[in-house]
Amino acid sequence: MSTVANEPVITVIGNLTDDPELRYTPSGAAVAKFRIASTPRTFDKQTSEWRDGEPLFLTCNIWRDSAEHVAESLKRGTRVIVHGRLRQRSYETREGEKRTVYELEVDEIGPSLRYATAAVQRMTRTNGSTTAAPAAQGDDPWSVPASTAAPASGGSFDDEPPF
Amino acid sequence: MSTVANEPVITVIGNLTDDPELRYTPSGAAVAKFRIASTPRTFDKQTSEWRDGEPLFLTCNIWRDSAEHVAESLKRGTRVIVHGRLRQRSYETREGEKRTVYELEVDEIGPSLRYATAAVQRMTRTNGSTTAAPAAQGDDPWSVPASTAAPASGGSFDDEPPF
Amino acid sequence: MSTVANEPVITVIGNLTDDPELRYTPSGAAVAKFRIASTPRTFDKQTSEWRDGEPLFLTCNIWRDSAEHVAESLKRGTRVIVHGRLRQRSYETREGEKRTVYELEVDEIGPSLRYATAAVQRMTRTNGSTTAAPAAQGDDPWSVPASTAAPASGGSFDDEPPF
Amino acid sequence: MSTVANEPVITVIGNLTDDPELRYTPSGAAVAKFRIASTPRTFDKQTSEWRDGEPLFLTCNIWRDSAEHVAESLKRGTRVIVHGRLRQRSYETREGEKRTVYELEVDEIGPSLRYATAAVQRMTRTNGSTTAAPAAQGDDPWSVPASTAAPASGGSFDDEPPF
Repeated sequence: MSTVANEPVITVIGNLTDDPELRYTPSGAAVAKFRIASTPRTFDKQTSEWRDGEPLFLTCNIWRDSAEHVAESLKRGTRVIVHGRLRQRSYETREGEKRTVYELEVDEIGPSLRYATAAVQRMTRTNGSTTAAPAAQGDDPWSVPASTAAPASGGSFDDEPPF
Repeated sequence: MSTVANEPVITVIGNLTDDPELRYTPSGAAVAKFRIASTPRTFDKQTSEWRDGEPLFLTCNIWRDSAEHVAESLKRGTRVIVHGRLRQRSYETREGEKRTVYELEVDEIGPSLRYATAAVQRMTRTNGSTTAAPAAQGDDPWSVPASTAAPASGGSFDDEPPF
Repeated sequence: MSTVANEPVITVIGNLTDDPELRYTPSGAAVAKFRIASTPRTFDKQTSEWRDGEPLFLTCNIWRDSAEHVAESLKRGTRVIVHGRLRQRSYETREGEKRTVYELEVDEIGPSLRYATAAVQRMTRTNGSTTAAPAAQGDDPWSVPASTAAPASGGSFDDEPPF
Repeated sequence: MSTVANEPVITVIGNLTDDPELRYTPSGAAVAKFRIASTPRTFDKQTSEWRDGEPLFLTCNIWRDSAEHVAESLKRGTRVIVHGRLRQRSYETREGEKRTVYELEVDEIGPSLRYATAAVQRMTRTNGSTTAAPAAQGDDPWSVPASTAAPASGGSFDDEPPF
């Protein structure tokens, strides 16, 4: 729902280099900051083995509810999938030197299931505070859009692909 | 580490339309199949409101350990981030009609933290069976590559970005 | 500048399967339709050779000026880079059968320079009609935003955004 | 066909900040270096207007034939679509200071057709030197894989892969 256009979208798989830092703006908006390291692998034909390349480090920002969920769920070392927009920000050091940093404005993030499982707990917002959804959620799962091609009869989706 | 090249990479945010189905190939490899629905939103200038568009449905396949972790962690309705390669597969129906389906060969998946928290449990492989990592993981977190720009002294990363 | 959110973004490298078809809506908006084929390659360890996989076919739509430029510049066989949003569209056949197709709503496209060169001609819009930019463009190239890191010396930049 | 895995893939739309620089490695491989600026736009609700944000600058490298085609086809100001892998590279300045840069290892690039047309000239490699394909290419276009859904009537396809 962003009102920013033309920012390059990128998905990065990496590990948190530290626990996320959660802060609040004066107006009360939550923001979490963390850094991820993504290590490429190159195939060495001589030895027929994969070797680690130089990692890519990216500072990430995420806002609002997601920020609080990140702070609760992730910690140093967690492998994550991060989807966001690559952004450049310039600033001046105290010495008056110009510096430029690249940052990832995160739209969506989740812990990777490659080497881990995750117990997912849906959060609902009530009167401004976020609480866990009632235990009945198993019977009444998160909303799923009905397939237009093959409307779910009795709540079950057909095996047939919609095309 | 795929030996397939030139497949279009895509990241999709969506909700599982059903619980994942876990199967094993004759050789013992796990594979999970599931379908996700991703609903776009269009801004109606007349009413100044966002409206749901027609959802995009995609069948997803994921292999090996990840497949088992998906089956354990995700269920109908879970919002996920899926990163993989878009693929087309043709087949013939019993009536001899040719059909084509689009599928997502998933490389990495995770539950989205937008509306949920997640308790992440790292799994380790020992003698062919996968078990939860020991409780000591908090003190000895998953491996994080050392920053080449600012080597972590005493295990803590500096505030300074590496650039 | 789209007012559509949450559509999966994808970049596909492929070849046009036919010349693009250019049409105009009743209100005069140009739209070009074409199909691309993207062929993956798999590495056969037995023979140590790359083999073609089943191609991915995608129907693409592009609008307005871009549509006219596509019709002028591309033809059957041209290798292109297509950047857009993956979309699903359902319709009914004359026989009342429901069908679903996947389409790419193209935001940006260009001929690939992997196996080809391209003579680029900038088009400018004047009074509703599009014409080639004046020959002087070589001396006064398209506007480029000033680099914060290394400002172009003697370079004057237009107020106009570069797109 | 890269033997590098796990590098974040990104597509950037931007303008060249300068003419590309073409060089050759001692072994004779061509490499082109250039920088692109991608300017995001934010919607100002107060004024109901789009405003330019801080541009993102990225240094790009491209190799072999593509490098030569880039040098021939693109110049300062050209709007391009760049598809590649984001990479971080550390180095030491003469003063012994450690610096880190982000670079884009380009896999595919093309001039954008949003504000321009392009006369595409296919290049063929013969005996190590690259020349333009024969004029007859109009009648015998680049090979296109046969569509499984709608085979081209009267169309014969080469065995050669389309790229």
